[in-house]
Amino acid sequence: MTRQRHEHDMTYFESNLHDTSMADVPISAQNQNPKTQSTSSALAFLPHIALLRLRPWQLVLCLDSYLAADRELTRPLPLTSPSIKLKHERNRERQERTAMAAGDGEVAVPAAEKPEEDQVVNPWEVSAKEGGKIDYDKLIVQFGCQRLDQSIIDRVHRLTSRPPHVFLRRGVFFAHRDFNEILDAYERGEKFYLYTGRGPSSEALHLGHLIPFMFTKYLQDAFKVPLVIQLTDDEKCMWKNLSVEESKRLARENAKDIIACGFDISRTFIFSDFNYVGGTFYENMVKIDKCVTYNKVVGIFGFTGEDHIGKISFPAVQAAPSFPTSFPHLFSGKENPRCLIPCAIDQDPYFRMTRDVAPRLGYHKPALIESLFFPALQGETGKMSASDPNSAIYVTDSGKILKNKINKYAFSGGQDTIEKQRQYGANLEVDISIKYLGFFLEDDAELEHIRREYGAGRMLTGDVKKRLGEVLTELVERHQRARATVTEEMVDAFMAVRPLPNMFN
Amino acid sequence: MTRQRHEHDMTYFESNLHDTSMADVPISAQNQNPKTQSTSSALAFLPHIALLRLRPWQLVLCLDSYLAADRELTRPLPLTSPSIKLKHERNRERQERTAMAAGDGEVAVPAAEKPEEDQVVNPWEVSAKEGGKIDYDKLIVQFGCQRLDQSIIDRVHRLTSRPPHVFLRRGVFFAHRDFNEILDAYERGEKFYLYTGRGPSSEALHLGHLIPFMFTKYLQDAFKVPLVIQLTDDEKCMWKNLSVEESKRLARENAKDIIACGFDISRTFIFSDFNYVGGTFYENMVKIDKCVTYNKVVGIFGFTGEDHIGKISFPAVQAAPSFPTSFPHLFSGKENPRCLIPCAIDQDPYFRMTRDVAPRLGYHKPALIESLFFPALQGETGKMSASDPNSAIYVTDSGKILKNKINKYAFSGGQDTIEKQRQYGANLEVDISIKYLGFFLEDDAELEHIRREYGAGRMLTGDVKKRLGEVLTELVERHQRARATVTEEMVDAFMAVRPLPNMFN
Repeated sequence: MTRQRHEHDMTYFESNLHDTSMADVPISAQNQNPKTQSTSSALAFLPHIALLRLRPWQLVLCLDSYLAADRELTRPLPLTSPSIKLKHERNRERQERTAMAAGDGEVAVPAAEKPEEDQVVNPWEVSAKEGGKIDYDKLIVQFGCQRLDQSIIDRVHRLTSRPPHVFLRRGVFFAHRDFNEILDAYERGEKFYLYTGRGPSSEALHLGHLIPFMFTKYLQDAFKVPLVIQLTDDEKCMWKNLSVEESKRLARENAKDIIACGFDISRTFIFSDFNYVGGTFYENMVKIDKCVTYNKVVGIFGFTGEDHIGKISFPAVQAAPSFPTSFPHLFSGKENPRCLIPCAIDQDPYFRMTRDVAPRLGYHKPALIESLFFPALQGETGKMSASDPNSAIYVTDSGKILKNKINKYAFSGGQDTIEKQRQYGANLEVDISIKYLGFFLEDDAELEHIRREYGAGRMLTGDVKKRLGEVLTELVERHQRARATVTEEMVDAFMAVRPLPNMFN
Repeated sequence: MTRQRHEHDMTYFESNLHDTSMADVPISAQNQNPKTQSTSSALAFLPHIALLRLRPWQLVLCLDSYLAADRELTRPLPLTSPSIKLKHERNRERQERTAMAAGDGEVAVPAAEKPEEDQVVNPWEVSAKEGGKIDYDKLIVQFGCQRLDQSIIDRVHRLTSRPPHVFLRRGVFFAHRDFNEILDAYERGEKFYLYTGRGPSSEALHLGHLIPFMFTKYLQDAFKVPLVIQLTDDEKCMWKNLSVEESKRLARENAKDIIACGFDISRTFIFSDFNYVGGTFYENMVKIDKCVTYNKVVGIFGFTGEDHIGKISFPAVQAAPSFPTSFPHLFSGKENPRCLIPCAIDQDPYFRMTRDVAPRLGYHKPALIESLFFPALQGETGKMSASDPNSAIYVTDSGKILKNKINKYAFSGGQDTIEKQRQYGANLEVDISIKYLGFFLEDDAELEHIRREYGAGRMLTGDVKKRLGEVLTELVERHQRARATVTEEMVDAFMAVRPLPNMFN
């Protein structure tokens, strides 16, 4: 690992991990549960997830290992930081932005309502109001998207003749925009395609990064549809202190991890912006650019005058894959197929903008299916330390390392002593091992059993952590084996601009 | 001509032709010269040229034929218009912009000096202070470029063993940035390349449009160097009410007129942005984007929050061809050749920005050789009417039409009656026929003769107009013959992304 590499990591992570409302509370203090609470439903814990700053395409695990010294320099949204603005100033600014962002049907919340919330979610900033948890119900209202309810899950089950993915069953993907219309179209025999992506700013992916790809693979398999995956190396080059070459290299490395998720090469086109922007893709960028004013992107994304012009026009680059004409080698001659975008909900602003623009350009609005954020090991209200590399599990971690991380760092909802645990049981609401099992332990019955036993004090934290260690070791080792088989030639093949003649079969 | 075509013309021209300080003075009143002035030097008239609104790549002839009704809608810089802002407001705004634009070595004028001038020159607005003429000496100081003096012209003569082009001899190209360094490098045997371009917003070119291309052809022939020509169809699509398809079609039509100027296909690469953006060109766009903040482009170009994000980031697209890595098929493996840009001086802001960025990206600053503006038939202080199609001569005009335009519309510096003309002679300073002959009559001796005789009253306006009609008929008919031989295959050949193995020989 070169010095340069370290610097990149530093700037990448540090801008994710700014101060939160709980930032000054030591972990030891947070880790005391005054009263044990148990939860009746295995699904109820999921809407209460971490207080995080997130990056595009990431359900970020909060982690970092490096300096915080130049934090202010690379900070994307200095004006909205609670640490440097008084509350009334932030409210005023948000009011102004909201007023500017309003006017299209995609922004549902009344401008006056927003300032009273301290919850901010956009591709560069996720912070909850005091108390520490993102209120996803409020987010749905604020963004104007819809809750993904049981009837839709049942419909997916019926249409695909497959059991719904664990991320659907457990509400990890909890919100949507027009997913019903995608299902309507599918039922009528109309085609759609999937679009997801990643900003390649780090060498190794975390577990959180895998979530949208695992889910997208399920959707691809279940619906038998083509998929485009955008690697925004241009974005990372612009936002981070990365050279073009390093961004392109990371895009290719990340592509290997993505391929290792098992995508079907006959239905999948992976591209990096530096390699692919041009032609009709660029035409769509220009068409989108033409529909969006500076004031609009300030309203949606909170840019300031000191942001560079690449940032300001980047939203069009992320919007362009939502339109099928951006991929003439795939969709030329096809009848304007619809687009479904699985992503974390922090990406919603990009696609709110895209949906606002789409009808003006004669395209369908892309549909979205949106996920919760993935918590750090230290807990959803824990301190996201810029100097702690142990707050996430990487797909490159060995079983030994990840078990060690879980044992040492996974925030426990269990009691301080065995006696108290036996007496009161664990607080499942804050227990990270339980949360992680909710994402990755596929057996509903076993999960329910663990929750019941642990919540009732009949299981100890160590038991749950042990089981989590097994589950994640299996996941990570399977990923590592798959990735080891991904050759440069396979990357070339996935990234080749080529027709996919059987992509809808 | 379809209805659509009319609309395009309308929006294209109307934004060029906003009110000027003389806008409300009827031509008849302007056309009276209280006292005849004669000029001792045939060269002296050139620095005093028209009060015009100009577009990228154009020495615009002011003309238009269509509605002014939606003028406000398409107006690029509403805040700077004298008609809707009071003078002190404009001064304050300009002061703020200048303060923001300062800070790089390329903007030479002190911020405090600018507000006192009413002269505004940028790619979307050219307006002189009251009195009506652009003060080019002040412009040189304001922009921080250098006057192209006789010693440089002599040097070009010596280095190329050719008589300097009439546009050099007569000060049409009157200013430069680092042209001396280009000549130094050339003398050392180092390579450079030429870069010019055009925004393809109209079907037919005017005489004014030909000027940079005529001069660039001369430079290519004299120095035997490669040339890249950018057709900014993306810009025109964004600025005007043009579809992508129409912009691309106009780019191709304009390419035929450019090819008809006689460029050497073994040394010339013509590209349209919609066809060529991508690869290393896009990488350079991103690198440039990264170096330029929104505040910076507001300072340089005067954008407002209501401008769309495509406008805001477009400067990087026009900057990118200044860097040789944008053309790997031409310059890959070559040692970072320098770039020389012939253009009208209204394009200087783009390249001031580019020169500011270049060293940070490891490139040479592009050198510039910059021209005056080309006056409308109605005169340099005349009303640029959005409803007058007769204020310019198109390269598609027949000899009969253009002679008629000259006779009817070319602003005359001659006296009202033959007797007065014989007595006082003509005012050459304002006479458009004399100005046009200065551009296009190559014979220095004949031009001097006409100036002397006309100025002394021994020639009448009709005589001068007759000679101009002959000169322009020859020019235009030669162009028409050349254009008629340009086939679609030739356009394809000039626009093919291909190596030019003998481009430096």
